[in-house]
Amino acid sequence: MENKPLILITNDDGINAPGLRKLISIVKHLGDIIVIASEHSMSGMAHAVTIQNPLRVKCITNEPNYREYLTTGTPVDNVKLGKHKLAGRLPDLVLSGINHGSNAAINIIYSGTMGAVLEATIDGVPAIGFSLDDFSQSADFNEVDNYVLSITKKVLADGLPDGVCLNVNFPKRSDDHYKGIKVCRQADARWVEEFEERQDPHGRTYYWLAGRFENGDGRPDTDQKALDNNYVTVVPSHTDFTSHDNVNKLDFNLK
Amino acid sequence: MENKPLILITNDDGINAPGLRKLISIVKHLGDIIVIASEHSMSGMAHAVTIQNPLRVKCITNEPNYREYLTTGTPVDNVKLGKHKLAGRLPDLVLSGINHGSNAAINIIYSGTMGAVLEATIDGVPAIGFSLDDFSQSADFNEVDNYVLSITKKVLADGLPDGVCLNVNFPKRSDDHYKGIKVCRQADARWVEEFEERQDPHGRTYYWLAGRFENGDGRPDTDQKALDNNYVTVVPSHTDFTSHDNVNKLDFNLK
Repeated sequence: MENKPLILITNDDGINAPGLRKLISIVKHLGDIIVIASEHSMSGMAHAVTIQNPLRVKCITNEPNYREYLTTGTPVDNVKLGKHKLAGRLPDLVLSGINHGSNAAINIIYSGTMGAVLEATIDGVPAIGFSLDDFSQSADFNEVDNYVLSITKKVLADGLPDGVCLNVNFPKRSDDHYKGIKVCRQADARWVEEFEERQDPHGRTYYWLAGRFENGDGRPDTDQKALDNNYVTVVPSHTDFTSHDNVNKLDFNLK
Repeated sequence: MENKPLILITNDDGINAPGLRKLISIVKHLGDIIVIASEHSMSGMAHAVTIQNPLRVKCITNEPNYREYLTTGTPVDNVKLGKHKLAGRLPDLVLSGINHGSNAAINIIYSGTMGAVLEATIDGVPAIGFSLDDFSQSADFNEVDNYVLSITKKVLADGLPDGVCLNVNFPKRSDDHYKGIKVCRQADARWVEEFEERQDPHGRTYYWLAGRFENGDGRPDTDQKALDNNYVTVVPSHTDFTSHDNVNKLDFNLK
């Protein structure tokens, strides 16, 4: 019992998302599992934390070596709640996903899935975010099993470098098998967006965000390029936003 | 007219925050100003975007060269709304703040103020986040003027390196003058947190997040250290989460 690793699992698509259920089914035998997820979708919540309102928590499954909690929090809140309240100690591993939708390239910055993963990293806990490049609720997760399992087992066995977590993305399922795993850099790709302007029944204007993804990054070793070529991508990621190359170049002294 | 730069200003403390009013008063003469801010505090909203709900916008001030909009969105939504709808073009500069509370060290990852700044960077717009190390609504901004003005004018004149924005933090006001500006790295400091557990009148448990900030980073050139020593800190920051040192070190091939 004592030697079983404690694995905290969360996501940003909510507790009933098929991607979360898939992830649980793949790794459930690897340790003591604590699932902490939100009632509603927290997609696009990034690294948001709930500081203006209190949080509610409900235990919905309590079995030996397996518990599930439903919360009103964000993915980052869920990692914090796990550590401080529900697990009673730092987990040995945090897993997040499997997200319905890619978190490659700039998507990491908007992602609640990766928010949870980065939050674990701040506390020195190895963490992996898994995402599939398919937004559909009926996304086909049928080829991810071996990849999720092997990456998770390797991280459980070997850990990760200090301050580093993994952003893992799976191509949308096609007729071809995935070609393998590539360790990559985050592509410098972005969303080209528009707001749809509509009128409500009272004649007042409101806006919906919409957009399409555009990759202008020609480097050979980016996640977006590998994902487009049917590889499973792994980007070692961290929480240091510093552009270190520019620290000694910039000068802002007055006069 | 045509030569005046277009400056978009936002924050995460809401449209009525004294820090926002202070920032506007300092830079108002530098260009055409468009202020887009949220009705309520969006503190801790990080890089969250509103994708589940439509956004509402209200123009509350419309003067020559100066407009103010109130929105239901996050700071990142406000930058997107400005670009796509309210300004009609990419601004020449995005300013965010002045935040009531430090965004040095790991605070950048939770910060709505810096979320807005990073969002501008994704579109190639120079952007600066200003924050004061004092959470109080009556925080003393009396020493920031020259620093805000000189940094803003320099960025308007010279731009910033591609993909780089600035995270500027001011020490809490004391009897001593600020010692000057230091260009720094993001300190590896973090929050040591707890959840306060309470009971509502119906006997149900809820949790409040609370915590204290702890800096264990001994490096000489971090923002937290300089801030603690009464320097104004500038961290050149970017949206690339890749831990580049680890791209060629990690190997996840099956078997």
